[in-house]
Amino acid sequence: MPVTQPDETPFRSVAVIGPGLLGGSVALAIRDLLPSCELRLWARRESSLELARELQITPKLYSDLGAAVSGAELIILATPIGAFEDLTRRMLPQLSPQSLVTDLGSVKAYVHRTTGAFLAERGRDFIGSHPMAGSEKQGLEHASTALLAGATCALCNDHQVSEEKMQRLERFWQAIGMKSYRMEPINHDRSVARISHIPHVLAALCARTADMGGVPKEDLRRLAAGGFRDTTRVSSGPAHMWSDILWENDVAIRDTLNYCIEDLHKLIELLEQGDRAGTEQWLAQGKASRECIRKGKR
Amino acid sequence: MPVTQPDETPFRSVAVIGPGLLGGSVALAIRDLLPSCELRLWARRESSLELARELQITPKLYSDLGAAVSGAELIILATPIGAFEDLTRRMLPQLSPQSLVTDLGSVKAYVHRTTGAFLAERGRDFIGSHPMAGSEKQGLEHASTALLAGATCALCNDHQVSEEKMQRLERFWQAIGMKSYRMEPINHDRSVARISHIPHVLAALCARTADMGGVPKEDLRRLAAGGFRDTTRVSSGPAHMWSDILWENDVAIRDTLNYCIEDLHKLIELLEQGDRAGTEQWLAQGKASRECIRKGKR
Repeated sequence: MPVTQPDETPFRSVAVIGPGLLGGSVALAIRDLLPSCELRLWARRESSLELARELQITPKLYSDLGAAVSGAELIILATPIGAFEDLTRRMLPQLSPQSLVTDLGSVKAYVHRTTGAFLAERGRDFIGSHPMAGSEKQGLEHASTALLAGATCALCNDHQVSEEKMQRLERFWQAIGMKSYRMEPINHDRSVARISHIPHVLAALCARTADMGGVPKEDLRRLAAGGFRDTTRVSSGPAHMWSDILWENDVAIRDTLNYCIEDLHKLIELLEQGDRAGTEQWLAQGKASRECIRKGKR
Repeated sequence: MPVTQPDETPFRSVAVIGPGLLGGSVALAIRDLLPSCELRLWARRESSLELARELQITPKLYSDLGAAVSGAELIILATPIGAFEDLTRRMLPQLSPQSLVTDLGSVKAYVHRTTGAFLAERGRDFIGSHPMAGSEKQGLEHASTALLAGATCALCNDHQVSEEKMQRLERFWQAIGMKSYRMEPINHDRSVARISHIPHVLAALCARTADMGGVPKEDLRRLAAGGFRDTTRVSSGPAHMWSDILWENDVAIRDTLNYCIEDLHKLIELLEQGDRAGTEQWLAQGKASRECIRKGKR
């Protein structure tokens, strides 16, 4: 078994398929932190390749998918999840059993059930990745190595790819600044529903509710301050991307939303009953849950 | 009618009653920005006066409420709203018809109905104030002039105090760094429900829901990133204070919470029906509402 030295790149060649905010950040991090790695970039649109050229991310830019992945040791699907099926079908003839395919999608059960299963059935290796990094600003023009620095990258190996490849993929994410963390796809999807997708929904709900009417809009504008700004921040992300994410993580999302509704009913009841101690306890539990989950974080 | 010159303090003497985060910040701003104003500080606890002394906020520190307000042109109630009734009863003998009482409470209809009515019936002037500034960190030790800089201060004059006093109060808030904005108490309370109190509830709900169980807590910890941090930030404020606020703004809060529940049901239905365009529209409306309300803000 070839042993990778600590100062070597875990993969000699990596193809990033779809340089948006996250794919672009991964590409920039490879360029800056793994200079010995052959970095390839494929984009559907000529304008994206143009921008990648301007940003001097890599000289190896491809509009031909087969050429981009042929001989690459690691292929990173960085497009929206909805494009994975078409892309993996088209790249299949150029994938060798030695190569490894991963992705950056924000749900993992669905991706393993579709893309992962499709590749595994054809003897190709797939391990799901999910870097917990993002921004409400989208696109390659906002990509940066800093976006990934210190972030956790979840890894799901539902198709039992070899431990050797799993470790190489872990070392790869670590080499470009992230902490790797192995998870079951179902736990991943439930966790991201609670920690990322529902926060997005509640941020949007918060903004929608503020706008429900009954007061002059100018009054809202004048009073909006830091609390409104932060609680709603993530809702300014792209609606089409988040609608896909909610759709792909449908079951976990609906379970969690039903919990939210029950919990709001509980609070309304406490207020109706004039139960001040209960209301305080409801809020205190929120504070405690936040602190417990964010323990040790900035 | 005495005309205050632009370079004069709108009130020659101001008594801040209860130097917590907000009262302390107002006191510091008076010290720094209105040096000709006689600043008095009253606190219930000796330890607060001790800290005020250390911070050199003012030499005029009082544990005797009557002495603190006697002869003061402006009295600022900066304690929790629950203490207003007792405080105004105790200070009443020392209040002259020339003095003006205001407060920093985060609801206004309730304060006007109680404190405002109590004073008005006795021929004393009350105008409600609400500086839209705060922090999840509480207490005088976190007070700062910067907290107020550029913030909006809502003013409610439900008891028809003279325009002259209203304008002096406006100039006072402006002189210590804020923008004043006149509102009806009912519109104020509905607006703060939508723009401040419900964000707090949804932030707490977000943290509570993350902690609902069904996944290893370590998974949540590992995945929690910026979205969770910001969406839940305000929930780390003091539960007892926020429980009072929800209680005092009870009607507007419950109306808005019921709207939240309906709106979440709408989203669940869109997901159940597989209506991706509708889901995207639901999210896009949140984004649009946020942008509309925050127009022109950082």
